[in-house]
Amino acid sequence: MDSIKIALLGLGNVGRGVWKILHGHRDMIREYVGVPIEIKKVLVRDIHKKRDIDVPFHILTTKFDDILFDEDIHIIVELMGGLNPAYQYIRKAIEKGKHVVTANKAVIASYGKELIQLANQRNVLLRFEGSVGGGIPIIAALTKSLAANEIETVVGIINGTTNYILTQMTRYEMDFNTALKLAQEKGYAEADPTSDVEGEDAAFKLSILAFIAFGVQVPPQDIPREGITRISEKEIQYAAQLGYTIKLLAVAKKHDGKLDLHVHPTLVPITHPLAAVNDEFNALFIKGDAIGELMMYGKGAGSLPTGSAVVGDIMDVSCAMMSGFREPYAYRNVREDLYINGEGEGEYYVRLEVVDQPGVLGKISTVLGNYGVSIASVVQRGRGERVVPLVLITHRVERKKLDLALEEIKKFDVVEEVASILRVESHSS
Amino acid sequence: MDSIKIALLGLGNVGRGVWKILHGHRDMIREYVGVPIEIKKVLVRDIHKKRDIDVPFHILTTKFDDILFDEDIHIIVELMGGLNPAYQYIRKAIEKGKHVVTANKAVIASYGKELIQLANQRNVLLRFEGSVGGGIPIIAALTKSLAANEIETVVGIINGTTNYILTQMTRYEMDFNTALKLAQEKGYAEADPTSDVEGEDAAFKLSILAFIAFGVQVPPQDIPREGITRISEKEIQYAAQLGYTIKLLAVAKKHDGKLDLHVHPTLVPITHPLAAVNDEFNALFIKGDAIGELMMYGKGAGSLPTGSAVVGDIMDVSCAMMSGFREPYAYRNVREDLYINGEGEGEYYVRLEVVDQPGVLGKISTVLGNYGVSIASVVQRGRGERVVPLVLITHRVERKKLDLALEEIKKFDVVEEVASILRVESHSS
Repeated sequence: MDSIKIALLGLGNVGRGVWKILHGHRDMIREYVGVPIEIKKVLVRDIHKKRDIDVPFHILTTKFDDILFDEDIHIIVELMGGLNPAYQYIRKAIEKGKHVVTANKAVIASYGKELIQLANQRNVLLRFEGSVGGGIPIIAALTKSLAANEIETVVGIINGTTNYILTQMTRYEMDFNTALKLAQEKGYAEADPTSDVEGEDAAFKLSILAFIAFGVQVPPQDIPREGITRISEKEIQYAAQLGYTIKLLAVAKKHDGKLDLHVHPTLVPITHPLAAVNDEFNALFIKGDAIGELMMYGKGAGSLPTGSAVVGDIMDVSCAMMSGFREPYAYRNVREDLYINGEGEGEYYVRLEVVDQPGVLGKISTVLGNYGVSIASVVQRGRGERVVPLVLITHRVERKKLDLALEEIKKFDVVEEVASILRVESHSS
Repeated sequence: MDSIKIALLGLGNVGRGVWKILHGHRDMIREYVGVPIEIKKVLVRDIHKKRDIDVPFHILTTKFDDILFDEDIHIIVELMGGLNPAYQYIRKAIEKGKHVVTANKAVIASYGKELIQLANQRNVLLRFEGSVGGGIPIIAALTKSLAANEIETVVGIINGTTNYILTQMTRYEMDFNTALKLAQEKGYAEADPTSDVEGEDAAFKLSILAFIAFGVQVPPQDIPREGITRISEKEIQYAAQLGYTIKLLAVAKKHDGKLDLHVHPTLVPITHPLAAVNDEFNALFIKGDAIGELMMYGKGAGSLPTGSAVVGDIMDVSCAMMSGFREPYAYRNVREDLYINGEGEGEYYVRLEVVDQPGVLGKISTVLGNYGVSIASVVQRGRGERVVPLVLITHRVERKKLDLALEEIKKFDVVEEVASILRVESHSS
């Protein structure tokens, strides 16, 4: 083979990054793969759009079939994003015997298992390192480097937008809306930030991580999630006083044949490695039974960081093509027997706004006790006002029990409000 | 193929970890590879030694040739450590057409390039993830996941013993000898700790990283290095007052066609991700031109963490065997044109013990200026004593110039001692 010919689907932010890397590192890549990698066609919506990269006009097309039926093209690189038509294009490409590289979290979260099986049947490779954590090689680590481990825990900060917002809120005592506006100005948040701030983006990525680490495919919409829109700067300050910082954590933890799987704003002890992950950075914290703790930290999004992952995948597939390699066993088998436990048990931070009078704590803790919720610590801050915040941290308990107890507690005249319920990530769990 | 048959050379700490993982995860591994991996022979020095694992007597041997000439054995896993006979055994294994997995830093640092070339000629695979950073998949990241990047920087804490000692010294204001003794009691330091505390172990690993990240093979003994034996708890406190923590850093940085390559106890700003890497943990901080910053953090040594890397390699080679894969281009090509710059330029922390009288700082800074050393900051702490510490932090300068200036400064009557010269790692460099 004289060269590996590829096609890009989409020339947005990541697509342009991939273009730049493939051109900027042409020599290095040829040396590594053995032959050059050539972009033969690029699928775009508008051929005439002005772009900041110099793409020869004749390789642009608006028709996917121009690419699908081009027998010269070995690898299709899908960078359009969104579920459709990306999913259909990937399926058709695999069915046509082409290798596929994608950074599409929606497609892999929803159809990863099916597409991998299809790729194995058709004897082609499907790679998706860019779909989670941008440039951080988390898929390679979980599927390959840690293959000798039973994975116990994957806990991550996997949404850069919300991490940037929470960092600004923490660092400058900013409110959510101001921080969101700043994130939008800096290009870290989209005009419609819903998917990021409501935790949907993180749930997509967590679904992929659960598949890769534990072999289960859980539809992202089935993953319990809570965004950060209700986090106030006041909550962040209360948390800080207790030695915690608030992060949007995606959690997958296996225990007793169950898999806890959820996305929540969470109190993280400031001594935890994840507490120091700030701004738009992502991090993945993994526990495996042989390796112990492993953390990976880097930029979770962006044209070049995600481009790095995508081009890494393209080079990997190219090397495999050059050596005749096929990889039928690269992913952990699906474990149908693992019970998906959703939010599972946890420690919780609860802030109540209560009337400042004797006996209130007694009443509340009695109800909590009746529902099996035991209290690890309590802070009540008298501010000389009629109503004061009462902050509780519970021991491990099922969320359902806590909610039932709080339903009852809410009815007390002395309880003005259940102002906040947040999860707490302890070091040991 | 019904099974992959392997042999272990050595059944020490890592060897026993590998044994335990291969047996404990027998089913998971068979599922992943497609066939079982079977340990057919184990080379040991003493067949009759009591061991904490249950190794069938008939697979033990004291003769390497029993393994080398066993045509059934596909992969030889070298876990003896030390340069010889490990190097000869690995060479012979490759020449005989067997794949090799090793965790041997001395062999790979000294003969990595030659062995990889030999393996490519003989069409076999050579893997050594366990040789640097224990279970942290740094070799896979640099060779594979980051293949699309030009690597600019690899800075790491790659010796767990010294990191444990420095952490104890920092946390409990302990002196070096007490911390070393504690490390020995906990099993983090050997009875003869020389190689660790003098930076030799880190230099071996840095040599491997330089090879993997930059394609140069630099003999470990040519890498400028300084250990931690001269670091006092007082120095750590001075550094802390300036906002730094002291870490033994292994540094490889490319700039202007040169590669700085050195191991030094270094002041790291407390806001730097590496500053939070404590106890026996290792971490690698990488900058690539596409990915930006990436950090990986985990256990850099130990029976199971290193065993995780070794078994990962064995599984990778096994998958490759099952699919007929050969990998001739997996490593960056050697760049003979990169100038190895040793310690290169840096910012330095200098502590002088000087007589507390007017004009001293003026005299000293004049001499520094004459040699082109410019001062970024100065702290003089009058303690009401005749002699007081004067701490300088310089701007970037060649070490040679600083040394010449200090030679001259040393001769002043008012200068009692040049007590300490340490490198400073700034955030931006």
